[in-house]
Amino acid sequence: MTIRVSIAGARGKMGKEAVHTVMNNPDMELVSVLDYKEVGNTLADTNLFPSSYTVPVFTDLQKLHSKTKPDVLVDLTTPEFVYEHTKQALELKIRPVVGTTGFSDEQLEELTALSKDSKIGCIIAPNFAVGAVLMMKFAEQAAKYLPDIEIIEMHHDQKLDAPSGTAMKTAHLISQERPIHEQGHAREKETLPGARGANYDGMRIHSVRLPGLVAHQQVLLGGDGQLLTLRHDSFNRGSFMSGVVLSINTVMEKEELIYGLEHIIV
Amino acid sequence: MTIRVSIAGARGKMGKEAVHTVMNNPDMELVSVLDYKEVGNTLADTNLFPSSYTVPVFTDLQKLHSKTKPDVLVDLTTPEFVYEHTKQALELKIRPVVGTTGFSDEQLEELTALSKDSKIGCIIAPNFAVGAVLMMKFAEQAAKYLPDIEIIEMHHDQKLDAPSGTAMKTAHLISQERPIHEQGHAREKETLPGARGANYDGMRIHSVRLPGLVAHQQVLLGGDGQLLTLRHDSFNRGSFMSGVVLSINTVMEKEELIYGLEHIIV
Amino acid sequence: MTIRVSIAGARGKMGKEAVHTVMNNPDMELVSVLDYKEVGNTLADTNLFPSSYTVPVFTDLQKLHSKTKPDVLVDLTTPEFVYEHTKQALELKIRPVVGTTGFSDEQLEELTALSKDSKIGCIIAPNFAVGAVLMMKFAEQAAKYLPDIEIIEMHHDQKLDAPSGTAMKTAHLISQERPIHEQGHAREKETLPGARGANYDGMRIHSVRLPGLVAHQQVLLGGDGQLLTLRHDSFNRGSFMSGVVLSINTVMEKEELIYGLEHIIV
Amino acid sequence: MTIRVSIAGARGKMGKEAVHTVMNNPDMELVSVLDYKEVGNTLADTNLFPSSYTVPVFTDLQKLHSKTKPDVLVDLTTPEFVYEHTKQALELKIRPVVGTTGFSDEQLEELTALSKDSKIGCIIAPNFAVGAVLMMKFAEQAAKYLPDIEIIEMHHDQKLDAPSGTAMKTAHLISQERPIHEQGHAREKETLPGARGANYDGMRIHSVRLPGLVAHQQVLLGGDGQLLTLRHDSFNRGSFMSGVVLSINTVMEKEELIYGLEHIIV
Repeated sequence: MTIRVSIAGARGKMGKEAVHTVMNNPDMELVSVLDYKEVGNTLADTNLFPSSYTVPVFTDLQKLHSKTKPDVLVDLTTPEFVYEHTKQALELKIRPVVGTTGFSDEQLEELTALSKDSKIGCIIAPNFAVGAVLMMKFAEQAAKYLPDIEIIEMHHDQKLDAPSGTAMKTAHLISQERPIHEQGHAREKETLPGARGANYDGMRIHSVRLPGLVAHQQVLLGGDGQLLTLRHDSFNRGSFMSGVVLSINTVMEKEELIYGLEHIIV
Repeated sequence: MTIRVSIAGARGKMGKEAVHTVMNNPDMELVSVLDYKEVGNTLADTNLFPSSYTVPVFTDLQKLHSKTKPDVLVDLTTPEFVYEHTKQALELKIRPVVGTTGFSDEQLEELTALSKDSKIGCIIAPNFAVGAVLMMKFAEQAAKYLPDIEIIEMHHDQKLDAPSGTAMKTAHLISQERPIHEQGHAREKETLPGARGANYDGMRIHSVRLPGLVAHQQVLLGGDGQLLTLRHDSFNRGSFMSGVVLSINTVMEKEELIYGLEHIIV
Repeated sequence: MTIRVSIAGARGKMGKEAVHTVMNNPDMELVSVLDYKEVGNTLADTNLFPSSYTVPVFTDLQKLHSKTKPDVLVDLTTPEFVYEHTKQALELKIRPVVGTTGFSDEQLEELTALSKDSKIGCIIAPNFAVGAVLMMKFAEQAAKYLPDIEIIEMHHDQKLDAPSGTAMKTAHLISQERPIHEQGHAREKETLPGARGANYDGMRIHSVRLPGLVAHQQVLLGGDGQLLTLRHDSFNRGSFMSGVVLSINTVMEKEELIYGLEHIIV
Repeated sequence: MTIRVSIAGARGKMGKEAVHTVMNNPDMELVSVLDYKEVGNTLADTNLFPSSYTVPVFTDLQKLHSKTKPDVLVDLTTPEFVYEHTKQALELKIRPVVGTTGFSDEQLEELTALSKDSKIGCIIAPNFAVGAVLMMKFAEQAAKYLPDIEIIEMHHDQKLDAPSGTAMKTAHLISQERPIHEQGHAREKETLPGARGANYDGMRIHSVRLPGLVAHQQVLLGGDGQLLTLRHDSFNRGSFMSGVVLSINTVMEKEELIYGLEHIIV
């Protein structure tokens, strides 16, 4: 069966990738896109896609639904619209696949209840890169056996915050399995402050920022005579598409809301 | 409760490490060692250990058992003796932890039955490096999501066989989850033969041999715009001790034979 | 002094990057572009650049020269046109910076003589990535001290040839310093053919091909108890721009033809 | 010609390695060792070497010289003795190869003058690992072209100081070629203090400490779309022996004091 897909946010960087991905997937059909702005009747009218992309554009989800009957709504818009779209989609029995993080706890609870009551699956994923999610899961599992851990994350030098969100999430997941303890020598001394990195429950996190880098992270787990390294390199936005496809396929079989790709992987 | 441990093969490279490891573990007591050769009354007599290592040496397992009542027999001898030791240990209700690979299928079946009938746990592990076992498990799990995989294993240049046993085992485990398919471009061409490495079900394995290297392996899993790397470095024999300790602790709670550390991890 | 730059091949992938690079460089001015096709009067007319890019387009180098007086012609066209452009540029006393490899030996000799006689600098660089050129130079230098070497190059799985051109060039440079000798154990054995990679004077080259990868190479040099790794990652075409800028600046001070970025670096 | 070598400090960890290295080198002969303690007449008497190591031990350098006429004295003793040994060796026209760092500036000046006046070569090397010295040299050279740099050094978790001496030396060398500038985004923010590492002239240094690690360092140089990584792994003390051998061979051809392996390499 071909899955009928609609996309919200098709003109954004992630959205454009998603349009191409769904168009080229033999098991899916892009039936429509949702856009809050009047940008023309079809994707081709936006001048962002080839003229063969004649998928219709709607500014209203209800109308989109009645005309194109999508199974799944992939929402890659900004946080300010995403809650409304998701709620409305669930009410229309369209399964949402959402790639943003801007939900409040109350909103998440409400959507969870709505999804459960209506038995309409919903997947919300702050990170769609399957490889990054696997890295985090494996780090959490391995921490039980090799509890001395440091994280090195590396990004381009235009990134503002350090450590990265993924590094913080990884450290948080690890801390569920790793007994809290200070690492390194009890009397170790920084002759230049900051050399030993940021301290998270005694683990250390190091943030590298250099031009040329994209988004990379390694988790190092040391033990007697050995080192286990879990590394993820994200070279471009294509890295998120594997998770989008996996989520579209998976949401068809679910009857509840799932938060985080890690809960549909292994 | 302190676990009473006996070691067979204490004079070997692995055995020596194991002696120190058990001696220094606060939850274990090294009560005796088994040696087929007359090497003196105590470990200290062998001139391989400090004079404070007064642990008694026996040439006969039955006598060792009656005099020192070990809970666990760690066997790090060569394949030729290990089957007899293991069988006899199970009969004496000593739990075997075995670090060699020289069992025939018949011998393994017999030991499995013996362990089950007597409800005496037994752990046989071809590879005691916890990090290496985790790398293999994670590679197997990740192959489901990122099925394009290459393995690079790197060892010192005195190693005779390529690929390494660990690389072959990893490829075998991966192949249980990864659909068989040729990787690389259908028309790819080696201008120097061998450049693309060894072909295992369409996956590629590369063996690096250089002076200075010890034992290293990385599994590379590629997907759209991303790369997941699982790497294990073994810097010295100490890397096996984490698995020996884990096995000693675990075998106390088992009532059957377990083959491979992967079945007691995660 | 601002360097007046003209670009041939501005509509290609490399050419587009070069246009943006020169436009954004405070020490350079993009005064014109050369295009064999009638594509409009300005870069903006091509619809490939912002409307503010009003740089004039010429189909004839002589006319381009008389109207816009460039100091340097950056040529990123295909091999078929590049020889004519370069010769003509030298005759017009415009300094060529060329990024293709399609010259015959006779053509190179002729251009070398022409450059020398007219004292007009000319730089021809098959690889503009400064980091890749440094990696190759360092590998050559280090080979004298650590002569046991393996190369691992990694590219996306749409690449047809293995090993890559950069790997072959690196091996060739290394072989000028490294005494020819077989590496690995004299009795080493491949249980799967190809595991030990391609053999180049006894060195080994391994070619990894995976989706997601871009262009990466590492040179591993092993010695007693140590490993030196020289690695270059090229994440996108931007990696070539550092070499283009360096070449434009350098060609202004030269009075002869230089082949290969390695001769203007360090 | 066989080089006649004497070693001071043969009972230490480095000294033992050096003894084996010289014994096994076909172009060298170990003619004697110097030891301030009465440890027996030959190396074999120390019980630290095989009984075939019948090299004579002297407690006095003058006597050692008159009896065994060494060309080179390799000094691997502690700083407290090394100045006296080196001075005396130069006076006896034995070429010193010294592996410690405990000289005062005055002592170094005096030895430099003594070496020059007597035309007796002398090599003093704080770091004998050829690969580490190459990494530092290459980092210095590359900094000119790729001036955005971070250093990650990784050591076992018993190391007390961070950053390591090698990292500080590397940063110092780089700073000779790299214009001082702050790296990263001007408004970057550490949400966990220390994440961005130690600041050295705007470069960042990160110190990882984990059990299992030995001594590893990587220098990362980023540029548009690319990353150059220079990495050195030291797996055991053998890594220093390449530098000892190189120094013994080189000191024979020198008529002055050389401080630092970097001045005899490349």
